[in-house]
Amino acid sequence: MEKLTLIKVGGKIVEEPASLKQLLIDFSKIDGYKVLVHGGGRSATAIAAKLGIESKMVNGRRITDDEMLKVVTMVYGGLVNKQIVAGLQAIGVNALGLTGADLNYMRSEKRPVKDVDYGFVGDVKEVNAGILADLIGKAVVPVLAPLTHDKSGNLLNTNADTIAGEAAKALAKHFDVTLMYCFEKKGVLLDENDDESVIAKLSQPLFKQYVSEGIIQGGMIPKLENSFEALEAGVKRVVITRADLIHTQGGTTIE
Amino acid sequence: MEKLTLIKVGGKIVEEPASLKQLLIDFSKIDGYKVLVHGGGRSATAIAAKLGIESKMVNGRRITDDEMLKVVTMVYGGLVNKQIVAGLQAIGVNALGLTGADLNYMRSEKRPVKDVDYGFVGDVKEVNAGILADLIGKAVVPVLAPLTHDKSGNLLNTNADTIAGEAAKALAKHFDVTLMYCFEKKGVLLDENDDESVIAKLSQPLFKQYVSEGIIQGGMIPKLENSFEALEAGVKRVVITRADLIHTQGGTTIE
Repeated sequence: MEKLTLIKVGGKIVEEPASLKQLLIDFSKIDGYKVLVHGGGRSATAIAAKLGIESKMVNGRRITDDEMLKVVTMVYGGLVNKQIVAGLQAIGVNALGLTGADLNYMRSEKRPVKDVDYGFVGDVKEVNAGILADLIGKAVVPVLAPLTHDKSGNLLNTNADTIAGEAAKALAKHFDVTLMYCFEKKGVLLDENDDESVIAKLSQPLFKQYVSEGIIQGGMIPKLENSFEALEAGVKRVVITRADLIHTQGGTTIE
Repeated sequence: MEKLTLIKVGGKIVEEPASLKQLLIDFSKIDGYKVLVHGGGRSATAIAAKLGIESKMVNGRRITDDEMLKVVTMVYGGLVNKQIVAGLQAIGVNALGLTGADLNYMRSEKRPVKDVDYGFVGDVKEVNAGILADLIGKAVVPVLAPLTHDKSGNLLNTNADTIAGEAAKALAKHFDVTLMYCFEKKGVLLDENDDESVIAKLSQPLFKQYVSEGIIQGGMIPKLENSFEALEAGVKRVVITRADLIHTQGGTTIE
């Protein structure tokens, strides 16, 4: 199968013109088929504030009421997504911006209310990877906004890490997929106070050992659990790295 | 060649949930291949006002400075476009929302400053209809937002009537194209005070006669001149009608 690299970058990098420009140049240097998944939370919070709408977060997730859904639809699906697409076209990458509603490529269901009512937040139920794979095979580069739909007319806010993981798993039927998560460090660190202590390769037994020893902790645990789940679902490797290293061999590789 | 109907609807219809829902149902009833082009000016003006940005119009066109470009990118490319796409998916239409940057389907150049500096407004220079035609042939329904790009990284605001006309002309190489412009009347009227006095068929000689007699005047003249230009460029027929009549044989047909 042909190689596909699916990269998820957070909001901060894509929301500042200088770092976005560098990211898109680095991204364009990656060989083979590519997909980019982006966030945009900082811009959503900023635009919401200007509109007099307060951003409420629970467990790091945005509560998305009717007004906030309009904001994220504007910011994720419009402002951030289209600026990335135009930026990629300028350097010869044939980008296509998509929400889950476009081509019905990702369907979700509104999250059931348990302890918390997250509002218009979608849990992914179905990924139609075939139509994406066809486009990718024609050198189109999908740029995925963190929005899905329920196929009943409603857009739903969906975490960008989730979009990346679900898209990677579905595309693994068509390609040799590397899923790359970018965050602020060079990789998973052996010592959180030493930015150079990157763990180059991480296996599941080693991960469990590091967790039991307290070396890996906090928000990195669910991120890595999701990575191992992606591997079990057919993704070839997961790389955790910093955005400026995406076109190098740097970061932590999980396979 | 196979039939394609390209419909342009203004902002008012797509910006109110009830009229949007009816429009999408009527649109879904049209046989054959379809494209939808939408506006969104009222929403852009409303969101801009909430953000403290004043909308300035000259000759009916929006002055698009840096801040207003962000607003129209959010509103046209995000809010309005994605709500239409999600609404169409809900009734079984495989919609794909696009700006000119997506797939580089429509390239424009920033309008030169003469008497008026319109700001980030694009005049269309190139339409890559082949990639649209391929998608349409696979039962994908493009939903075109009134935004183009300059292929140097900048999105540009472009009038929805212009997007519709340029897309129709380019697609005429691939399909038997009917270009349908929706406005608030049932068609071009013989008597502006009688909404039922619709001219069923309009030829260029008859148009010239009606203009000389003062029967057709004002903003309808450039609209019809653009329609005749589209016919000369290969579009099979132009229909001017009201949005609730798009799936009927109503309105004024120009061929």
